[in-house]
Amino acid sequence: MSETRTYRIAVIPGDGIGKEIIPVAQQVMEKATAGLADFTYENFDLGAERYLRDGTILPDEELERIKRNDAILLGAIGDPRIKAGILERGLLLKLRFALDQYVNLRPTKLYKGVTSPLSNPGDIDFVVVREGTEGLYCGAGGAIRQGTEAEVATEISINTAYGVERVVRYAFDLAMKRRRHVTLVHKKNVLVNAGDMWQRLVDKVAKDYPDVGHDYLHIDATTIFLVTEPSRFDVIVTDNLFGDILTDEAGAVVGGVGYSASGCINASNQYPSMFEPIHGSAPDIAGQGIANPTAAVLSAAMLLRHLGLEEPATSIERAVEADIEERGSTQRSTERVGQDILARL
Amino acid sequence: MSETRTYRIAVIPGDGIGKEIIPVAQQVMEKATAGLADFTYENFDLGAERYLRDGTILPDEELERIKRNDAILLGAIGDPRIKAGILERGLLLKLRFALDQYVNLRPTKLYKGVTSPLSNPGDIDFVVVREGTEGLYCGAGGAIRQGTEAEVATEISINTAYGVERVVRYAFDLAMKRRRHVTLVHKKNVLVNAGDMWQRLVDKVAKDYPDVGHDYLHIDATTIFLVTEPSRFDVIVTDNLFGDILTDEAGAVVGGVGYSASGCINASNQYPSMFEPIHGSAPDIAGQGIANPTAAVLSAAMLLRHLGLEEPATSIERAVEADIEERGSTQRSTERVGQDILARL
Ligand SMILES: CC(C)[C@H](C(=O)O)[C@@H](O)C(=O)O
Ligand SMILES: CC(C)[C@H](C(=O)O)[C@@H](O)C(=O)O
Repeated sequence: MSETRTYRIAVIPGDGIGKEIIPVAQQVMEKATAGLADFTYENFDLGAERYLRDGTILPDEELERIKRNDAILLGAIGDPRIKAGILERGLLLKLRFALDQYVNLRPTKLYKGVTSPLSNPGDIDFVVVREGTEGLYCGAGGAIRQGTEAEVATEISINTAYGVERVVRYAFDLAMKRRRHVTLVHKKNVLVNAGDMWQRLVDKVAKDYPDVGHDYLHIDATTIFLVTEPSRFDVIVTDNLFGDILTDEAGAVVGGVGYSASGCINASNQYPSMFEPIHGSAPDIAGQGIANPTAAVLSAAMLLRHLGLEEPATSIERAVEADIEERGSTQRSTERVGQDILARL
Repeated sequence: MSETRTYRIAVIPGDGIGKEIIPVAQQVMEKATAGLADFTYENFDLGAERYLRDGTILPDEELERIKRNDAILLGAIGDPRIKAGILERGLLLKLRFALDQYVNLRPTKLYKGVTSPLSNPGDIDFVVVREGTEGLYCGAGGAIRQGTEAEVATEISINTAYGVERVVRYAFDLAMKRRRHVTLVHKKNVLVNAGDMWQRLVDKVAKDYPDVGHDYLHIDATTIFLVTEPSRFDVIVTDNLFGDILTDEAGAVVGGVGYSASGCINASNQYPSMFEPIHGSAPDIAGQGIANPTAAVLSAAMLLRHLGLEEPATSIERAVEADIEERGSTQRSTERVGQDILARL
């Protein structure tokens, strides 16, 4: 008899469709790993409803419990009833920062069977390695004289060699397993302090990877290439905000963020990594059972790969690819997509 | 005999293809205004070659002379031989800031005859009103311990009620002359200080324009809609960096930034406004006489409109539209496109 390892997974379904897609992702994980791994799930009731009920966002005690898990599966955070920023900064970004998830990994792939809005999309298959713990996401900045004509509001982007070099190394490592090309995206002609440091660190790290080519693009030019020539990219490495922007555009280009998974990875394995679809809580379609769970399922596959469960991760990805290729844009219920994927495992 | 007014135009061809397209724009301006207006041109030798020759970027004395003109026609700034940021910040952004060009106006239109990379582009006709004198473009921020493992680099986005309200008012005024809808684009769920102020000021200004509808989108979501539903937009108002990013993506969506003009406008008319294509100096094709002058010609039309010369501005736009509709994507020399447009005036 082979030994099965047990992993503890923190599950945060969150808001809106998050609650509908996460159970599907769990079912798929379970089936794909049957006989190979066991999971114990610890559910965390975090998000809009909890906040509206008792005013808590992410208590320290719960954060500590989350830390004791091997990985986190997250649905989506966000609710129109709550002022923008409260849950994002208090929960989602707090997790990314507190768990030092410095690699925000976002693969972009045009699956067969999906219609891209581009008439000539070509072969799209790249990964954005977005820095996850620095830049404009630090929460630095403030406001004076709020609500008056003399108001001043600032936002501060903080970037460190420590933070940039580690994510750049991750990008070059990843490129070695792919088509061996890294593109740095920044706006170094305007953001000269941060941009210059990013460029120097890319040049420095590149010396350790003589087989990996690298180039540079401004963020504005990159948004053009994502539309005119997305197949040119292999690995993009970029800062927190630019990565946020590019991956949404990239999601659109490959037929919708409904197919885009992401991992918030603490690559030093000091804390658990977190896996989540890049789409939001979609309050407009929540509760109807029609949300597409594909991105959540692909996020679960990334989670498995992160835990070293390479084979079940690949089998989930194959099942999803086959499902999309056959059923593509057909309108199906959340449950039905889940069943169709399960049936292929 | 009718009286013709004389306008003084500062001309900065700049780098690369800038030198090739600006003369075409001037020819077209001349013909379109014959008998209506006279122009005296003051040429400024600014840009990469000047900098490489004598190390100057924008001497105070030349800035003062530029100020004495009624408007500025600029080609493009940028040269791969010069480190990113030097000319951009020392010349282009210096002009925008010193001349308080707080409205960076960028119309986006899909012309008949142009092939969009989208398979279903729809009717695209919107204007991005990009703030031009604040945000991350101020040059605030710095770096310590440069080149060491302990380096920290910051970029500071400075936003003021003074600066935001005036550009928001401009956007609402413009919407009144268009389809009466303003979309604020920001990232207020993360950049809470600046985002909150932008939103409050939009809400405040909107009260003075009961006939103009308004909504809000995050920058990341906007990059999606630019690809999936660009026809939804009428007037977008946004900050300096987001405007930079969106207008390049928008340019790609309407078939290339080669058709996109822009105005850096001091709407209080204290200083001259500046008109420039949004594309760059394109060093890869410079000197071959093949650069498309259309965006420069359309920038000249914006310049004329700004000076109150509405009719010639419209006649240039009509000529360009007819030219594009007939000749669309045919490969023509710079000179030839100019002749074709001139022939239609
Ligand atoms: C919800 C928001 C804070 C978040 C981000 O900006 O990172 C989201 O857009 C994402 O990309 O995961
Ligand atoms: C050249 C650069 C500084 C400039 C900007 O970022 O504003 C350009 O991209 C533009 O959009 O006009």
